[in-house]
Amino acid sequence: MNQRMSTERYNRICQLLKMRQPDLTVCMEEVTKPHNVSAVIRTCDAVGVHKVHAVWNESENLRKCTAMGSHVWVKTQLHKTMQDAVGCFKEQGMQVLVTHLDERASDFREVDYTKPTVVLLGQEKTGATADAIALADHSIIVPMVGMVQSLNVSVAAAIVMYEAQRQRQAAGMYEEQSLDEKECQEILFKGGFP
Amino acid sequence: MNQRMSTERYNRICQLLKMRQPDLTVCMEEVTKPHNVSAVIRTCDAVGVHKVHAVWNESENLRKCTAMGSHVWVKTQLHKTMQDAVGCFKEQGMQVLVTHLDERASDFREVDYTKPTVVLLGQEKTGATADAIALADHSIIVPMVGMVQSLNVSVAAAIVMYEAQRQRQAAGMYEEQSLDEKECQEILFKGGFP
Ligand SMILES: C[S@@+](CC[C@H](N)C(=O)[O-])C[C@H]1O[C@@H](n2cnc3c(N)ncnc32)[C@H](O)[C@@H]1O
Ligand SMILES: C[S@@+](CC[C@H](N)C(=O)[O-])C[C@H]1O[C@@H](n2cnc3c(N)ncnc32)[C@H](O)[C@@H]1O
Repeated sequence: MNQRMSTERYNRICQLLKMRQPDLTVCMEEVTKPHNVSAVIRTCDAVGVHKVHAVWNESENLRKCTAMGSHVWVKTQLHKTMQDAVGCFKEQGMQVLVTHLDERASDFREVDYTKPTVVLLGQEKTGATADAIALADHSIIVPMVGMVQSLNVSVAAAIVMYEAQRQRQAAGMYEEQSLDEKECQEILFKGGFP
Repeated sequence: MNQRMSTERYNRICQLLKMRQPDLTVCMEEVTKPHNVSAVIRTCDAVGVHKVHAVWNESENLRKCTAMGSHVWVKTQLHKTMQDAVGCFKEQGMQVLVTHLDERASDFREVDYTKPTVVLLGQEKTGATADAIALADHSIIVPMVGMVQSLNVSVAAAIVMYEAQRQRQAAGMYEEQSLDEKECQEILFKGGFP
């Protein structure tokens, strides 16, 4: 065991790594507010997402990158364009869902999240781009019966991710380790997360 | 029909009022950040909450009151103390649930939200007060399998409220008007909401 780590911490990280869901993730598309980025990442950690993705022009988004970087428990990967990002998801055999306020979108509860899945999240003001909508396999919507036009983006993300958590828990997916053993060992060797 | 309103708006409001759930609400306990208050209220509107509650020292919280007031589609009621607030909920026969990060708390999905229900939300840093915990009928928790200690408060609220929405939808509770007809007429007469 790594000497920099207490036994308690070591055990906690072991347990966490066993439940990680490497084939469940989100991709934020120019989400601009650090508090939203931060809330999304906390939710992702809580449902066992191992790595979150974002499409950002890095140089312009220092504060957001800081918001992402401060969450050492979840890895982050940036992409220059949505095309790059979706290419990378498809390579991994993921279904690509875009959260989108469109009447033709499916109810988010109708989707099977036990499949490898990425959920695309749109920008606070403008929502998902035409690119994201075109590249995604399906649009999903969280139903609303009030007057407001949309939910906060971190709220919408959480509602969808906890539906995924519910389905994956029911399917026993938190009971078998999915994360590559080599990666687990590396993380433990480094004393947790970077 | 009120002359200040278009037919479209009138119909939309009629439809909204029919789905309002007057016996489902939240109570924010000193939630401090306006963006969180705002996100909670948007979510409440989206699941059909008619009135949200807060325990606040009004004079000290002008910015938050503004965040609340700007959401004209959901009524708001302030209480001086949690005791006052819970007294008011109990009078209405509501079960009082407190969202609380305690191992003894029940999984939020184990609760029956078709009953009249209020969900107490704690402050961002300090969480639910001892008062709130003592006065509530049950503590509920959203399960987490990561390293972060808690979810963002508006995120936790949304996950719980959408479970309530799911149960109430399954029980047909959005298909029958629950809001008092007199109150509906008043709202329509006033041209919508204040
Ligand atoms: C504030 S919304 C964007 C609103 C924008 N005016 C639009 O029409 O798309 C920001 C993001 O939150 C997510 N979102 C918000 N409400 C949602 C809902 N009811 N269903 C699905 N996604 C939602 C989507 O990712 C959306 O792009
Ligand atoms: C950031 S948390 C407060 C953290 C505080 N350190 C504590 O221990 O309570 C703010 C509020 O969000 C809600 N909350 C956050 N995560 C939650 C979870 N996993 N289950 C239930 N409520 C949660 C609760 O209302 C909590 O009071």
